Amino acid sequence: MERPRHQGMAKNTYMRWRLPLVCLLWEVAMIILFGVFVRFGPEADAHWEEEKHEMNLTSDMENDFYFRYPSFQDVHVMIFVGFGFLMTFLKRYGFGAVGFNFLLAAFGIQWALLMQGWFHSFQNGKILIGVENLINADFCVGSVCVAFGAILGKTSPIQLLVMTLFQVTLFAVNEYILLNLLHVKDAGGSMTIHTFGAYFGLTVTRLLYRPNLEQCKDKQGSVYHSDIFAMIGTLYLWMYWPSFNSAISEHGDAQHRAAINTYCSLAACVLTTMAFSSMLQKKGKLDMVHIQNATLAGGVAVGTSAEMMLTPYGSLIVGFICGIVSTVGYVYLTPILESRLHIQDTCGIHNLHGMPGLIGGIVGAITAAAATEDVYGKEGFIKAFDFTGSYKTRTPSVQGGFQAAGIVVSLLMAFAGGTLVGAILKLPIWGDAADENCFEDDIYWEVPEDEESDSYHMHNPDKPASP
Amino acid sequence: MERPRHQGMAKNTYMRWRLPLVCLLWEVAMIILFGVFVRFGPEADAHWEEEKHEMNLTSDMENDFYFRYPSFQDVHVMIFVGFGFLMTFLKRYGFGAVGFNFLLAAFGIQWALLMQGWFHSFQNGKILIGVENLINADFCVGSVCVAFGAILGKTSPIQLLVMTLFQVTLFAVNEYILLNLLHVKDAGGSMTIHTFGAYFGLTVTRLLYRPNLEQCKDKQGSVYHSDIFAMIGTLYLWMYWPSFNSAISEHGDAQHRAAINTYCSLAACVLTTMAFSSMLQKKGKLDMVHIQNATLAGGVAVGTSAEMMLTPYGSLIVGFICGIVSTVGYVYLTPILESRLHIQDTCGIHNLHGMPGLIGGIVGAITAAAATEDVYGKEGFIKAFDFTGSYKTRTPSVQGGFQAAGIVVSLLMAFAGGTLVGAILKLPIWGDAADENCFEDDIYWEVPEDEESDSYHMHNPDKPASP
Amino acid sequence: MERPRHQGMAKNTYMRWRLPLVCLLWEVAMIILFGVFVRFGPEADAHWEEEKHEMNLTSDMENDFYFRYPSFQDVHVMIFVGFGFLMTFLKRYGFGAVGFNFLLAAFGIQWALLMQGWFHSFQNGKILIGVENLINADFCVGSVCVAFGAILGKTSPIQLLVMTLFQVTLFAVNEYILLNLLHVKDAGGSMTIHTFGAYFGLTVTRLLYRPNLEQCKDKQGSVYHSDIFAMIGTLYLWMYWPSFNSAISEHGDAQHRAAINTYCSLAACVLTTMAFSSMLQKKGKLDMVHIQNATLAGGVAVGTSAEMMLTPYGSLIVGFICGIVSTVGYVYLTPILESRLHIQDTCGIHNLHGMPGLIGGIVGAITAAAATEDVYGKEGFIKAFDFTGSYKTRTPSVQGGFQAAGIVVSLLMAFAGGTLVGAILKLPIWGDAADENCFEDDIYWEVPEDEESDSYHMHNPDKPASP
Repeated sequence: MERPRHQGMAKNTYMRWRLPLVCLLWEVAMIILFGVFVRFGPEADAHWEEEKHEMNLTSDMENDFYFRYPSFQDVHVMIFVGFGFLMTFLKRYGFGAVGFNFLLAAFGIQWALLMQGWFHSFQNGKILIGVENLINADFCVGSVCVAFGAILGKTSPIQLLVMTLFQVTLFAVNEYILLNLLHVKDAGGSMTIHTFGAYFGLTVTRLLYRPNLEQCKDKQGSVYHSDIFAMIGTLYLWMYWPSFNSAISEHGDAQHRAAINTYCSLAACVLTTMAFSSMLQKKGKLDMVHIQNATLAGGVAVGTSAEMMLTPYGSLIVGFICGIVSTVGYVYLTPILESRLHIQDTCGIHNLHGMPGLIGGIVGAITAAAATEDVYGKEGFIKAFDFTGSYKTRTPSVQGGFQAAGIVVSLLMAFAGGTLVGAILKLPIWGDAADENCFEDDIYWEVPEDEESDSYHMHNPDKPASP
Repeated sequence: MERPRHQGMAKNTYMRWRLPLVCLLWEVAMIILFGVFVRFGPEADAHWEEEKHEMNLTSDMENDFYFRYPSFQDVHVMIFVGFGFLMTFLKRYGFGAVGFNFLLAAFGIQWALLMQGWFHSFQNGKILIGVENLINADFCVGSVCVAFGAILGKTSPIQLLVMTLFQVTLFAVNEYILLNLLHVKDAGGSMTIHTFGAYFGLTVTRLLYRPNLEQCKDKQGSVYHSDIFAMIGTLYLWMYWPSFNSAISEHGDAQHRAAINTYCSLAACVLTTMAFSSMLQKKGKLDMVHIQNATLAGGVAVGTSAEMMLTPYGSLIVGFICGIVSTVGYVYLTPILESRLHIQDTCGIHNLHGMPGLIGGIVGAITAAAATEDVYGKEGFIKAFDFTGSYKTRTPSVQGGFQAAGIVVSLLMAFAGGTLVGAILKLPIWGDAADENCFEDDIYWEVPEDEESDSYHMHNPDKPASP
Repeated sequence: MERPRHQGMAKNTYMRWRLPLVCLLWEVAMIILFGVFVRFGPEADAHWEEEKHEMNLTSDMENDFYFRYPSFQDVHVMIFVGFGFLMTFLKRYGFGAVGFNFLLAAFGIQWALLMQGWFHSFQNGKILIGVENLINADFCVGSVCVAFGAILGKTSPIQLLVMTLFQVTLFAVNEYILLNLLHVKDAGGSMTIHTFGAYFGLTVTRLLYRPNLEQCKDKQGSVYHSDIFAMIGTLYLWMYWPSFNSAISEHGDAQHRAAINTYCSLAACVLTTMAFSSMLQKKGKLDMVHIQNATLAGGVAVGTSAEMMLTPYGSLIVGFICGIVSTVGYVYLTPILESRLHIQDTCGIHNLHGMPGLIGGIVGAITAAAATEDVYGKEGFIKAFDFTGSYKTRTPSVQGGFQAAGIVVSLLMAFAGGTLVGAILKLPIWGDAADENCFEDDIYWEVPEDEESDSYHMHNPDKPASP
């Protein structure tokens, strides 16, 4: 600790006034905007009792709440416990992983309700919300959690809030372009959530490049129990991913199908991840980094196509491939991205969300292009792709083309948006830590002086054991 | 360990015969009482097949099971994992936190099924139970879990079982007064669960005041990983709170609305908690105690009003305020309560359940008083407040008055009941630990002699490092 | 580490080519078999839109997805988080517990979809799958997770995959004999899952007997935080067991009833477990091993009868007994099984699944034999036991006899299958570890060199503190 550290001197990580100011101002803004714009949708409003009569609904069960609420809760767990705990693998950044994820997601869902509401649920000057809006807000924040993975440990909470503000905005614009203008299907968000989120985050971390990060290489690792904490995140993401990909699909067979396809893809993905994790390591031992992350790639990669007639074996094939791609990415690609392109990707989101997201977009385009009335049934075909109104005459192959265009648009939005936001986050006013203090909770959190930490310092090779 | 400790000598914490005796006797009593009184309700009974015909139900979906079971499971997780893990923050009391919470809740739900059953589901000499009874039993036990937070680490398992027996009884009486006699609405239990539970627990801990508790001040803190375990509890409470507040609301729009309001309130609460946690600390660092607890105050505070037309922005405002109140409470009020009023509140339940519960009762009273047929619709208005039968003529402002009365009744029941139970628990027969052995699993649990604990003792300043 | 260890020399635990080969070959086989056989069932197929009209269904809610998906997700959590984390109690085998459970379950569900599909969902040469198949696949894998508990820490991942392949196959055959040939009811799997899984696993571990296992007795224990991790598994199993036992019951009252019975049985079980855990220990302290495991026996033991009219007090009695039996088993029986019968049962599955499974089968037989039209109602009686078609004339007492036969068949299948699979796993080609390296992640996993592990070695009595 005696080494002179130039940058460290210049960094002011004092949060006492800046963080509260940002949090309070933004929350006040949320209250005002919600007050002006947000109201209950018809199925959550007390007038629904009358609406039921008008719509001739015989059962309260017809309320969308019962179709989607269980899936919503699963998605909610994925965002807060799934992403939060997945990132606790770092030995001394568990508070930041869970806590900052909690902060940015809690802010992000409010802003997403507004942004997505203006685009999709705006009627007579009001945003009318229901359970589907809550799911979509969680989805939108999911893409921020993805991007957070790339910059984990290297940013201040204010930077995360600024990034969330911009990323949610851009997400909503991109989503609008894809779903409304291009009429693209993307229920599980391979393009809108994963591809966009990953390449956005990678662009941001590129702009925030820290040349001296190897100074804290030791803190970028895990300890035994932090790896087990991370498995809580992994498993909840893995188990609930079928709910994620089916949460906003059409009622009935589409939700059912999306869950089955995702279940299959994820199962296959675990086996190829284990295979390649062992194979790519000289000693043949399994690496927790791969198990924690690459096993999930199968869920990302059926995000677009899960609600389509991908079929169970199609899902297995996609999962099979993505487990391999993702694991190989962790072993070979991540080091190259860092050394050659100066992309420091803490959690390896390029392997878990970037490449599998792209694959997911492509698989979706192909699956759409290959759709036939024979496979879907006449009514099912129209319902699955919503070929109604002005899209009545769109053919599957044209749909496939638009799906592919959706990938490109998402990538462009990610690069452009990431560059903008990265540049903003580079401003020296946000209180980020010096390179040698990255991946360390102590900067922003009151950390208990526990025995573990005692022993940590005791064994720290940098410190002499006795004076 | 060499210091002479007067009280420590006198304390007999030996559980071998007392704890088994209490557990077995009580469980036998449960079996007998269940045998005499408890039967399946019509929707869980095999006769339902015939009942369906009589009631002209066309679908099995009309069974209440499908309306409430997903919410029930979320509530169940909150009681056992949520409360259990929230209290694992203490460095050497994780077994007690999770294990005793498990014990008291498992006993409490049985006794609650009986007590609440006699008051609310009693027909022809039998208590008829269904999924709603299970939820209500979990709710009732929730108030015991709240009270447990105040005395965490300072009581024997027998004391906890005795407290559970009495508190569940008093809860059921209080609930009956509020819901049936005052005709008060309190679906999420701001009054019945949180206000009652918190002030009951605070009264009990006041009576069990331990003047020499600072002897184990070091054990009242957390270690790094125990704080992360506690975040599991926090997040599950936070994520599933929308299910908690909507679980027993009317089918349809009321459940839908309650979930949305709670979601909004909780989101806002996170931001103000973070803001004030940083602001009230000289170094501007975030404190895990606040993040673990105050972020949840928003859920408590919409417990009464969530199913009403509180509106999303109303919820944001409530959450905004409660994050502040709760965090400020942790920083300023808890130390004063301890030093001035001798209330030793281990988990700070006054900040998480006490004040937010009161706010929740008040918000509920105001929201009810402000209700109009215009906002709710004619039918919705009657349905929301159940203004039928003998309550047909009750006006919103009268309802608001009764709601306010409900707060007062809950407080009185809590103080009176807490005093009674505190006095009983003070009897020297329950095997509680001496002051210097509080917050230590070793008294009641077989604790593995692990390396951590080795190093704990190694670094323990009380012990000489070498003989 | 200097002691000469004969077997240790001979063991080759190098996984680099063997594990990948097995994983990849088997996954390719899955893809091919799924491609040939597996298709979406009617409720997950896009043709459902037309099917709905034909079947005159007025609501999407009638899709089985909405009846079962929430329960499916709970079961899914039990298999992956529940079983996975329950086994993390070992101080240095957390990666193996969670990771290998993940691997075997991910493979097992695919193979189970096929095996169970051929027996139960085969139509016109295709296996048609829906959410019920996913639940059944999870159930089938549950029995493998049970068996895994007996051999935890003593087998290579390849052995686990081989065991999974065979056990899933045998499970499907046994299940077919019970459900289809004997027409036995076993919705929660007391016989098919727990009895079969436990005695299968015990037979396998008997054949894999390691005479020198006491060499690593120190690693068979837990550390403080590993016991808390294990409680995550325990609580999720405990909380979601009502979903497990009700997941595949008939729609309506049967699901409702199964959840209530299981809830009651589990609650009672906690109290008797605590009682006996304290009573059977000289110092009267509670033992985490019992709390983690025996509290769950009540769920196992109503697996067959939960959907019947067992009644809440009947459930309490079953839970009461099983908490005692299971805890007594841990204290007295497990050591005897090891010393006399050479059955080394790492997790004590005989106490958690074996004996309670048998009790569950017996309780089911008695409950079935005692059924009357009076208790079930005329229609309910027929529906509950499916006394239709060729079983129209079966009486309750005959049904009880067949239920009892189901127990015997399950036991025979377990012993025979376990012997076969144990013999196969004894072949010296699977890369299992030497006796002194059991219960140690380091053999198959990259383990971070953390401070804990440093201090572990520092305190390791085998190693000299200084050279």
